[in-house]
Amino acid sequence: MNGYQEWHLHEDRYFNPDPAQRSIAGELYRSVAHLPIISPHGHVDPRLLADENASFGTPADLFIIPDHYVFRMLYSQGISLENLGIPRRDGGPTEKDHRKVWQIFADHFYLFRGTPTGVWLADELNSVFGIGEKLTGQNAQSIYDQIEAKLKLPEFRPRALFKRFNIEVMCTTDAATDPLTHHQALRKSGWDGNIRPTFRPDAVVNLLTPGWSDNVKALSRASGINVVSYQGFIRALEDRRAFFKSMGTVATDHASEKAYTAELGSSEAEAIFQRALRGKMSPEDARRFTAHMIMEFARMSIDDGLVMQLHVGSIRDHNGLICQRFGANMGADIPTQSEFTHNLRPLLNKYGMDTRLALILFTLDESTYARELAPLAGHYPAVKLGPPWWFYDSINGMRRYFDRVMETAGLHNTAGFNDDTRAFPSIPARHDLWRRVSADWIAGLVVRGIVDLGDAHEMILDMAYRLAKRAYKMA
Amino acid sequence: MNGYQEWHLHEDRYFNPDPAQRSIAGELYRSVAHLPIISPHGHVDPRLLADENASFGTPADLFIIPDHYVFRMLYSQGISLENLGIPRRDGGPTEKDHRKVWQIFADHFYLFRGTPTGVWLADELNSVFGIGEKLTGQNAQSIYDQIEAKLKLPEFRPRALFKRFNIEVMCTTDAATDPLTHHQALRKSGWDGNIRPTFRPDAVVNLLTPGWSDNVKALSRASGINVVSYQGFIRALEDRRAFFKSMGTVATDHASEKAYTAELGSSEAEAIFQRALRGKMSPEDARRFTAHMIMEFARMSIDDGLVMQLHVGSIRDHNGLICQRFGANMGADIPTQSEFTHNLRPLLNKYGMDTRLALILFTLDESTYARELAPLAGHYPAVKLGPPWWFYDSINGMRRYFDRVMETAGLHNTAGFNDDTRAFPSIPARHDLWRRVSADWIAGLVVRGIVDLGDAHEMILDMAYRLAKRAYKMA
Amino acid sequence: MNGYQEWHLHEDRYFNPDPAQRSIAGELYRSVAHLPIISPHGHVDPRLLADENASFGTPADLFIIPDHYVFRMLYSQGISLENLGIPRRDGGPTEKDHRKVWQIFADHFYLFRGTPTGVWLADELNSVFGIGEKLTGQNAQSIYDQIEAKLKLPEFRPRALFKRFNIEVMCTTDAATDPLTHHQALRKSGWDGNIRPTFRPDAVVNLLTPGWSDNVKALSRASGINVVSYQGFIRALEDRRAFFKSMGTVATDHASEKAYTAELGSSEAEAIFQRALRGKMSPEDARRFTAHMIMEFARMSIDDGLVMQLHVGSIRDHNGLICQRFGANMGADIPTQSEFTHNLRPLLNKYGMDTRLALILFTLDESTYARELAPLAGHYPAVKLGPPWWFYDSINGMRRYFDRVMETAGLHNTAGFNDDTRAFPSIPARHDLWRRVSADWIAGLVVRGIVDLGDAHEMILDMAYRLAKRAYKMA
Repeated sequence: MNGYQEWHLHEDRYFNPDPAQRSIAGELYRSVAHLPIISPHGHVDPRLLADENASFGTPADLFIIPDHYVFRMLYSQGISLENLGIPRRDGGPTEKDHRKVWQIFADHFYLFRGTPTGVWLADELNSVFGIGEKLTGQNAQSIYDQIEAKLKLPEFRPRALFKRFNIEVMCTTDAATDPLTHHQALRKSGWDGNIRPTFRPDAVVNLLTPGWSDNVKALSRASGINVVSYQGFIRALEDRRAFFKSMGTVATDHASEKAYTAELGSSEAEAIFQRALRGKMSPEDARRFTAHMIMEFARMSIDDGLVMQLHVGSIRDHNGLICQRFGANMGADIPTQSEFTHNLRPLLNKYGMDTRLALILFTLDESTYARELAPLAGHYPAVKLGPPWWFYDSINGMRRYFDRVMETAGLHNTAGFNDDTRAFPSIPARHDLWRRVSADWIAGLVVRGIVDLGDAHEMILDMAYRLAKRAYKMA
Repeated sequence: MNGYQEWHLHEDRYFNPDPAQRSIAGELYRSVAHLPIISPHGHVDPRLLADENASFGTPADLFIIPDHYVFRMLYSQGISLENLGIPRRDGGPTEKDHRKVWQIFADHFYLFRGTPTGVWLADELNSVFGIGEKLTGQNAQSIYDQIEAKLKLPEFRPRALFKRFNIEVMCTTDAATDPLTHHQALRKSGWDGNIRPTFRPDAVVNLLTPGWSDNVKALSRASGINVVSYQGFIRALEDRRAFFKSMGTVATDHASEKAYTAELGSSEAEAIFQRALRGKMSPEDARRFTAHMIMEFARMSIDDGLVMQLHVGSIRDHNGLICQRFGANMGADIPTQSEFTHNLRPLLNKYGMDTRLALILFTLDESTYARELAPLAGHYPAVKLGPPWWFYDSINGMRRYFDRVMETAGLHNTAGFNDDTRAFPSIPARHDLWRRVSADWIAGLVVRGIVDLGDAHEMILDMAYRLAKRAYKMA
Repeated sequence: MNGYQEWHLHEDRYFNPDPAQRSIAGELYRSVAHLPIISPHGHVDPRLLADENASFGTPADLFIIPDHYVFRMLYSQGISLENLGIPRRDGGPTEKDHRKVWQIFADHFYLFRGTPTGVWLADELNSVFGIGEKLTGQNAQSIYDQIEAKLKLPEFRPRALFKRFNIEVMCTTDAATDPLTHHQALRKSGWDGNIRPTFRPDAVVNLLTPGWSDNVKALSRASGINVVSYQGFIRALEDRRAFFKSMGTVATDHASEKAYTAELGSSEAEAIFQRALRGKMSPEDARRFTAHMIMEFARMSIDDGLVMQLHVGSIRDHNGLICQRFGANMGADIPTQSEFTHNLRPLLNKYGMDTRLALILFTLDESTYARELAPLAGHYPAVKLGPPWWFYDSINGMRRYFDRVMETAGLHNTAGFNDDTRAFPSIPARHDLWRRVSADWIAGLVVRGIVDLGDAHEMILDMAYRLAKRAYKMA
């Protein structure tokens, strides 16, 4: 990747050891390694890029405290989140000395052996920060010094790294009620980085969200529509979509536990909405309302052309104590079984044949890849499959995805890669890993006589760059 | 395979690139590549072989219009079925110029990269039709010319290809009510091809089948038994099985969404049957009646010796619009979760210990391979596992099947290969792929010291030829 | 392994054929091949080791009659258990001539090609008994002679093999009501083999166990507490745990079909228990009582420090006829779907953050590895994952486990290896297979640049020895 050094890392990392396959994988990889990054789905804070002088803070601020991939592994081995400097909701005591936090991290760096976090960190430390040795308890403080020094340099400010990382476009994830202040500042600043918001309305759609009625009030304020009815709710959402679109948005994002869809009559939708406004909704109300709203969002996508992403199967904040003490999204989301064949049928029978709809599906239940998702994507014109998500954004996760999805769906019913990260400096490492594992997969097809080298070069271009751009209508 | 050319295709295709494994895989493959084909389950139209002068029509008639594997992929990318020349039920306009249909197919042939359809087509075009270059939009019309010319030659009539393909036996799939006219004509013609019907009673067993009561009337006509009661229904089915058996049938075939089995008392069975005759059956009636009939068919199999096939887990015609406009089986069947452990227990506890029963199970839910199916086949004498079905009739599908099934079930509790195809010219490509992937799997066991070369040669003979013949009682 | 010969077996068996990976795998394997065996979970009869003169009986007594892995495969191919010498509960006739049983086994030894039983048997026959040729129908009687002669030698008594196998510690599995007579005799004998009982209370916890009320009476006798109430039941269990602990127990073991946990109020628990004492419990009572008791056992583990094992997902004695005729555990247990994310939430929210609890989870539903178990183990401090269990204690089973578990859970949230066997002479073959497949997996990470060789050496030590010892608190 442009400006992306590879000192001390294995040049052919993640490739099959067979010399014939490895040689072709290397050829394919090198043909795309320097292409710009398309990052159509992620969670980087736009504030980092809105302010040209923003900085990442200390090494612990950058690598540990905001990254639940990192601290949940340490926590699983009995290290308290307080000792890792994670802020408590009650303001209770947590470690303030970031060198101590870093030392704990370094002492336990062996926990990340063989994990994606381990290889991303190795790549970031080496390629981004030029660290030439493996992090250990012994060299922890010296490496801290090196990173800390780098982080003070202008070339390590977020905007500089954005350019160095060669990011062509990056989408953030933003609440439907978000005024997009940072995105507005970004645009006004005249900086030419291509950053786009994504419309995520879950907090006003899921009636069981803590603070839902406050969120609805925020929706009223943001849209200028006084949301006191279901019809007003729909109009306010449409208004926000139009605003997001005016700010460069290309996609929306939606969460669902089971991918359940069902169309409610407008009187039932209104009745549920009114119960929710009075705080009287039941879990079944919430389930049916979400099912209905997913269909409504498909309809809106057909109208306004925004790409629709659906992320299915996460049980949020499984560990109640952690949620209570530290808040949501603290590394305790646990996947559960999903079902797409029956659950998406209402939506797909109504909108799945419409080529104006682009519905990108993500799952945390890999048993649905070959059984449900690939056959659905291999039939319905509207459906594309997103890349392996979260726990499966990994070498083996990608290999399983290629293995189970591609034969049935075909490459062109997939959507390339998303990094889906809030850890900005990990973006190049994540895309590089995808490109390498993709190249290795295609090389495996070449050495088995399944595709020829000409096709292989087309496929790696698709996977590294073109599919993502096309799926998110940025081509 | 006999008369099966391999110009321009990779000689060691589908084999692991490791030189040691590849060499053994090649040795094993070549030892069985010329063995006759056993095709115990498929959907070739017997009419093609009943008439010695039957022809395949145009290249589009042969490769595209009847093959939902092909057109569902094109459809998934936004190409209408009308433009592919698929006939509409309402007789509405569809493309009649097969050269235009072929051009669309060739323009989009890249969609099949890395798919089983892609490698079968490459093999058919090259090995059967002698096409020496990859199909592209540029050469589409010239390749159309070449295939069209071939299809007019006597050696490209179905019977000639049947001989060239070296098919020892081929079973078709036929409704319980089918008079087997084409099979009778075949027998009378004196041609020595071994073609056998298979008894498939789903259309009279599944009470929710559109036109069920017409199907029951057809059953009355075919059996000469006036089916007005459950007992008459059973007698008529037994009569039809006897007729099929007299026509060479070795097996029956049954579909089930969930593999649910349950024995009804005769009064409950009669009551449900009477409700169905009056059009008053509920979905639960249909579910219980199918569950019961699967047990009845196991009992009949013990009586008459027909092998019983059970195909589990397909949601038929998921896309209502496509079904309404083009009919059933148009590439929109989507798999769903299956369950065998609890659902088959009633059947297996009654009949699973009886060595006269041969029950061959097929699944579209691969999570059941290692968890349910391999343990069941590795215990119950009556149970064998069919080969990877449909979406899993592919290189990766076979690898996953070998990986998950063989250690627990053992090779001898599996049933060899089925091509399960309606695309007659794809038969040798499909069996060749199975033989290659099997040889590669066994070679992997040899290079890992798990089996020796002597065992390996026995295993490839089993997989390429003997297991299928034995499982379907044709040995 | 110490005293563990490898004549005639492939020196690099189970390793990837790639020369680079194989070379590293061999280096890693050889670095741990001679380490002592840690066997923290298994089903060897302690009687074998309590009596210094105990013998294994005939070759059929050793290899066939007690091993349901072996006879269920023969049974699946239509060989009756009577012909294999398996005793009937009704005392009905079974084969008494063990040479005939052995001949059937040898005639059908090809059924075990590519199965774990096949490679264990090859290893045992060769490495333990010095048999230099593959077992066949032809050499069956001569090999019988050789094994029979060896089994009469003092160095083939169980205690001698225990030493030769270099077993550092072996845990048995013992009912909560067991007086541990053999363990007491073992201790008194002065022999220095380290054998420890494991506390398994399923037969008094699962209210539907045949003979449950007799088991409760046995619990009263064993504990000296007259168990007529739920509170007495709990006290009796705590008493037995204390006794087991005094006898060297480090762990408890619990079975659950679905991993369902729920805390009952003490009055509900008492009410269910009273219904059970009167024989009036419902299946739902049993389900809820087990769910509650699993939580109680977690509480007790926090109190007394015993490691808690939970084995989930087996439907016991699926074949009713076999159970009725031959008893329980006769090779007819079939796995079913499990669910951990929702089902363990009550337990984990109450106790999962407590580092005093060590909860080791085992599954027969591999779809839960990546989806549920690895994320749970990668978050909750109390949770570790047990090795691949039963049908998955195999080369492919281990590869799938490494593939799906390690990236998310990390190696240190796993518990090393268990052999889980009642076949004592198979213990070294099973641990050797684990060590080889582990070494090959790590070598695969090295050649892909994911871990370096220094880390690799640490990892193989963990997998071969240290993790099991640490997880079971024996380090």
